Amino acid sequence: MIYVVGIGPGKKELMTFEAVNALNESEVIVGYKTYIDLIKEFIKDKEVVQNGMRGEIQRCKDAIKKAKEGKKVAVISSGDSGIYGMAGLILELITKENLDIEIKIVPGVTASIGAAAVLGAPIMHDFCHISLSDLLTPWDVIQKRLKLAAEADFVICLYNPRSKGRKDHLQKAFEIIGEFKSGDIPVGIVKNVGREGEFKQIVKFKDIDFETVDMTTIVIIGNKSTYVYEDKMITPRGYVL
Amino acid sequence: MIYVVGIGPGKKELMTFEAVNALNESEVIVGYKTYIDLIKEFIKDKEVVQNGMRGEIQRCKDAIKKAKEGKKVAVISSGDSGIYGMAGLILELITKENLDIEIKIVPGVTASIGAAAVLGAPIMHDFCHISLSDLLTPWDVIQKRLKLAAEADFVICLYNPRSKGRKDHLQKAFEIIGEFKSGDIPVGIVKNVGREGEFKQIVKFKDIDFETVDMTTIVIIGNKSTYVYEDKMITPRGYVL
Ligand SMILES: C[S@@+](CC[C@H](N)C(=O)[O-])C[C@H]1O[C@@H](n2cnc3c(N)ncnc32)[C@H](O)[C@@H]1O
Ligand SMILES: C[S@@+](CC[C@H](N)C(=O)[O-])C[C@H]1O[C@@H](n2cnc3c(N)ncnc32)[C@H](O)[C@@H]1O
Repeated sequence: MIYVVGIGPGKKELMTFEAVNALNESEVIVGYKTYIDLIKEFIKDKEVVQNGMRGEIQRCKDAIKKAKEGKKVAVISSGDSGIYGMAGLILELITKENLDIEIKIVPGVTASIGAAAVLGAPIMHDFCHISLSDLLTPWDVIQKRLKLAAEADFVICLYNPRSKGRKDHLQKAFEIIGEFKSGDIPVGIVKNVGREGEFKQIVKFKDIDFETVDMTTIVIIGNKSTYVYEDKMITPRGYVL
Repeated sequence: MIYVVGIGPGKKELMTFEAVNALNESEVIVGYKTYIDLIKEFIKDKEVVQNGMRGEIQRCKDAIKKAKEGKKVAVISSGDSGIYGMAGLILELITKENLDIEIKIVPGVTASIGAAAVLGAPIMHDFCHISLSDLLTPWDVIQKRLKLAAEADFVICLYNPRSKGRKDHLQKAFEIIGEFKSGDIPVGIVKNVGREGEFKQIVKFKDIDFETVDMTTIVIIGNKSTYVYEDKMITPRGYVL
């Protein structure tokens, strides 16, 4: 039995009851060290298998090995487990090896939803998620999606917006999006949602300082109706008030 | 004080702790009748203001009135409160009338995330949300988004896919999307996620029966890599296994 558990963006108040139940029922907890630390209080006295970034495949293989031994295992993702998380990888491995292990996906509050609540209500209308990481996706596919999403006037949530290895991706993304969106559109930047050091900023599209963005940040770019009121970013749904 | 609370798709296990805490702290609970019924056990002995569909604006005005009287109020949305929910409307009204009421947005697991967990891992790669309701959005804007989202090969989650008043929207949406997506792409249909009568189906794009879809259904259309294994719908992230 493997639970693939989304633990939400950070603080325990944003976990679901189902996530906590799955941790309680599991004998082995597998995850990236940073996330294991976030849920420490729920996994006292349990066997923990943790490793660093980019160890995802090994982590899933470890989880499957434990499950084959008959153990109940929880694999941890931050946010939702099915959004750039571990759910897909676990299911892909199960598929490939045609294994008979019960899998339960436990959903969670993803970073965009957590960040939106901090910002106000920026994703009240049609929106999309685009990851700027080109480790697993060709950069030209990402560029095409950015262009078409901007042309469609979606609210755009950028995951993995900027890392040390690809500092320029975010700036390039803004150049592409800027062909369709006005420089005055509000952009919300939230770092460490629900974690220590939570930080939010709302700026105009043309005024963004890319240096404020790092790998634990999510960037939400409004649509043409999005506006700012005091410290809130709001995308109207279209009601006539 | 107004909490705008996302209660998740249905069952209480998918609520967050923060949502339950907000309900506990509130003196007045405002919401659409169906959602009030879902959280009955958390609001015993509280004042409840409920009304029917399309009463959103009145609901928010009622909540603001109670808050002005000094009461702690919780306004309820299903799923996440900031995704086609009540967060935007409350903030728009506050903005418009320049009111000094503290607002706290409490995020939740939205229908697409809940449905994805039931289906497997369909939203593991870039995806978008599009609402097919043209009550508040012109149909030509919706059509444009459908076309560009399909061209970008996003996984597409359709909210408000089909109601009695607009039975043909879903079929028209499929015609538009079908210009770019192959008829063999998997489509996941989930009705009543986390509620009584939960029902899931995975079909090929070309084989969908629009009659299975109603207003409490979400439809998730894969990208060109999405595949089906046994009863799971999986969109690979791109790992080489
Ligand atoms: C590999 S993705 C994992 C997403 C995660 N499964 C989710 O649903 O939120 C990592 C990216 O998610 C975003 N992210 C995850 N947690 C975050 C948080 N607490 N605050 C801000 N951004 C976060 C960042 O953009 C980060 O680069
Ligand atoms: C006005 S939107 C509200 C969305 C909600 N705030 C959320 O975040 O899930 C209503 C639409 O959401 C979808 N939906 C909401 N709850 C659902 C559930 N439990 N099962 C399936 N679809 C649901 C349906 O497409 C429905 O027509």
